[in-house]
Amino acid sequence: MTASGRLLVEILSIGDELLMGQTVNTNAAWMGRILEEEGWRVNRCVVVSDEEAAILEALVDAESRADLVLITGGLGPTRDDITKHVLCQHFNTSLQRVPAVEDRIVGWFQRRGREILQVNRDQALLPEACTVLDNPLGTASGMWFDRPGGVTVSMPGVPYEMEYIMEHGVMPAMRQRLERDGRRSKRAHKSLLTMGTGESQLAAKLGAMEDELDAAGVKLAYLPSPGSVRIRLTAEGHAVDALETAHADVVKRLSQWVVSDDGASVEEALGAALSRNGWTLAVAESCTGGALGAAMVARPGASAFFLGGIQSYSNAAKVKLLGVDAGLIAGEGAVSSSVAEAMARGARDQLGADFGVAITGIAGPEGGSEAKPVGTVFMACAGPSGVRSVHHRFGRDRKRNLEMSVRAAAQLALEMALNEAADAKPASGVADSL
Amino acid sequence: MTASGRLLVEILSIGDELLMGQTVNTNAAWMGRILEEEGWRVNRCVVVSDEEAAILEALVDAESRADLVLITGGLGPTRDDITKHVLCQHFNTSLQRVPAVEDRIVGWFQRRGREILQVNRDQALLPEACTVLDNPLGTASGMWFDRPGGVTVSMPGVPYEMEYIMEHGVMPAMRQRLERDGRRSKRAHKSLLTMGTGESQLAAKLGAMEDELDAAGVKLAYLPSPGSVRIRLTAEGHAVDALETAHADVVKRLSQWVVSDDGASVEEALGAALSRNGWTLAVAESCTGGALGAAMVARPGASAFFLGGIQSYSNAAKVKLLGVDAGLIAGEGAVSSSVAEAMARGARDQLGADFGVAITGIAGPEGGSEAKPVGTVFMACAGPSGVRSVHHRFGRDRKRNLEMSVRAAAQLALEMALNEAADAKPASGVADSL
Repeated sequence: MTASGRLLVEILSIGDELLMGQTVNTNAAWMGRILEEEGWRVNRCVVVSDEEAAILEALVDAESRADLVLITGGLGPTRDDITKHVLCQHFNTSLQRVPAVEDRIVGWFQRRGREILQVNRDQALLPEACTVLDNPLGTASGMWFDRPGGVTVSMPGVPYEMEYIMEHGVMPAMRQRLERDGRRSKRAHKSLLTMGTGESQLAAKLGAMEDELDAAGVKLAYLPSPGSVRIRLTAEGHAVDALETAHADVVKRLSQWVVSDDGASVEEALGAALSRNGWTLAVAESCTGGALGAAMVARPGASAFFLGGIQSYSNAAKVKLLGVDAGLIAGEGAVSSSVAEAMARGARDQLGADFGVAITGIAGPEGGSEAKPVGTVFMACAGPSGVRSVHHRFGRDRKRNLEMSVRAAAQLALEMALNEAADAKPASGVADSL
Repeated sequence: MTASGRLLVEILSIGDELLMGQTVNTNAAWMGRILEEEGWRVNRCVVVSDEEAAILEALVDAESRADLVLITGGLGPTRDDITKHVLCQHFNTSLQRVPAVEDRIVGWFQRRGREILQVNRDQALLPEACTVLDNPLGTASGMWFDRPGGVTVSMPGVPYEMEYIMEHGVMPAMRQRLERDGRRSKRAHKSLLTMGTGESQLAAKLGAMEDELDAAGVKLAYLPSPGSVRIRLTAEGHAVDALETAHADVVKRLSQWVVSDDGASVEEALGAALSRNGWTLAVAESCTGGALGAAMVARPGASAFFLGGIQSYSNAAKVKLLGVDAGLIAGEGAVSSSVAEAMARGARDQLGADFGVAITGIAGPEGGSEAKPVGTVFMACAGPSGVRSVHHRFGRDRKRNLEMSVRAAAQLALEMALNEAADAKPASGVADSL
């Protein structure tokens, strides 16, 4: 438990594939999010290899600090998965066959028309000392162990199976436990997103306000990303009551850079600005291949503003599907402001949207020239009041160039939309500072 | 050092945003990948909060085990970033101003036309005991500390800054150190990707071969993802010589399920199959908004096979840009096999591609019905020999539904392409088992 009475959680992820970077540990991030929302504190995340000694050492260590230890991974039917045996050793128990679980596993294979093997049936061998947590999405069950000073839970590493067990097994049982013991804590966050300056400038603008917030128990964190900085305010216990006012004060003080005051990303802020005004969006993507569109539909509710677009990766597609002049491409090059603008207009016209956003660039590692090196990307946005384009020279890394292009295109469209909204109805909150 | 003489590395990531899941720890995965390629072993990754006691405890712990400790995060100019002060305390040193670094920081701000503040200049205050590692991409330098038994390095958490410092500072210096000490280890991996069965069936098919591989020093790991299982073979030291043969044996034994024998993903295998045969691909995406196209261009070389596509999120776009019959949509619904097939044909025709792949579904959380619940997705592929469609009922999570849709569509197209290739020229390795 923390000083403020919050439940202290540690996450232990098992798997060489995580240490080698073959898999990104999205499980820990997902768990961190829902535990934080619940008001519980994640104190530490540890990743160890599929080795008995390493797992045991990390487990003993985590249990010495945390109320709740959440283990993921190493529960598959193959011999590289040893977590279950390590747990038996640690909790001084042995495996027993659980008929109800075996029936479920057999049914799982039957429904899929797959042959069932002994190793699959043996997934029903579970530690006698644990409470089994159902996993209808796979063959590895969750295991809940009560121990002196807390609880340890082991779950499979497959993300949706872990998520199911967390939502249906771990969280409800832990809430019940805390209620029984009269321990429910209070913690809250509020965020805002800024663009156009760095974290030091933002901190300078806040000045003495940081001390005041500190005194009121509100903690401030700056989370920079390429092109934007998110500011997170956190309060615990009684300070939660001060959070609303503190957040409003910070938004006001930083208003010239604030693009969303509810913690939304640039893409989400764009979607919100479009929805708010009843406007629609179309995209035209060359180097990003569809990543901007994918970012726009990542959140529910996209159909309110997103009409679609053209993935004009080839020049022929730019000409045929977007109506870009072939002579323009030949003259200026496919990676140019004129072609980006023509693509944006094309998307807007073809889809009949209020805004058309286009991206064309050289993501790399090949295709650069002296005049247009790898990382050169043009973004354009066509709206009711005309067309604007910007260009960036990001860098040499393809993946980063693609991510930055999506962010920059969304940012350009957001600026155009906020300007349009400000022109249409002046004096409306955030928008008039831009 | 490991028993085999490999350099032992531990990664320590600092930041509440990681524990709360606001940021996914992609840094650790990136480092794991390049360290593993180098033949060094990542033993453990730990994430702790921005708190002095937590950082110190984890640092002491990591240094007790690892030759090289890599710290990321907590080096920003704002007051929530405390790593530098913790390092001074730990290494019993103090901050001194490094004029060359201050000049670089000032230049960085000047080139961007941004006002420089004292806190920015103070990024040139660095521990006296460290060797500074240049960071031309930001204001926080890397810090290399020699310590009894090894090295500890601190880097900023911004991914591309950390990556630059790793590639230009840490890796070359560490290689030099190991060469000087006569320690360079040997380790190698090979992978293969299977589809169509589970890990237990694969293990059963390998049977006694697993024992033989074990005896030869080749370690086997099963890495399941939705719809596919990757198998990784790892060998160290002398066993590396046996790896090639072991890999070929495993590929042969599992040939009926192998879709790539070089560790490629389904999307990469599809790109490779298309490139190999000189075929082109077009996409038509409804619910995924462009994510399939984005996945296809994620790797360099996509222009060899990817022409582009239509993001037909709205029904109007399906009709106008893909030529889908409006009556078909009205009759069967936009989420149906006939519309998916019409979209695939439309993409193939519009872009003039050899293969057209389409996705239409209900990603959720809204829009489901009893007959077509959230998670219902239709995939279709139109190729030289006709059209095929499949449908899945994934689940209720929007993000997962979108990811699974992309994977399933690529899988369908890969099967069509491999079949087409097998028909065209029978008896060609992997393809004839499908």
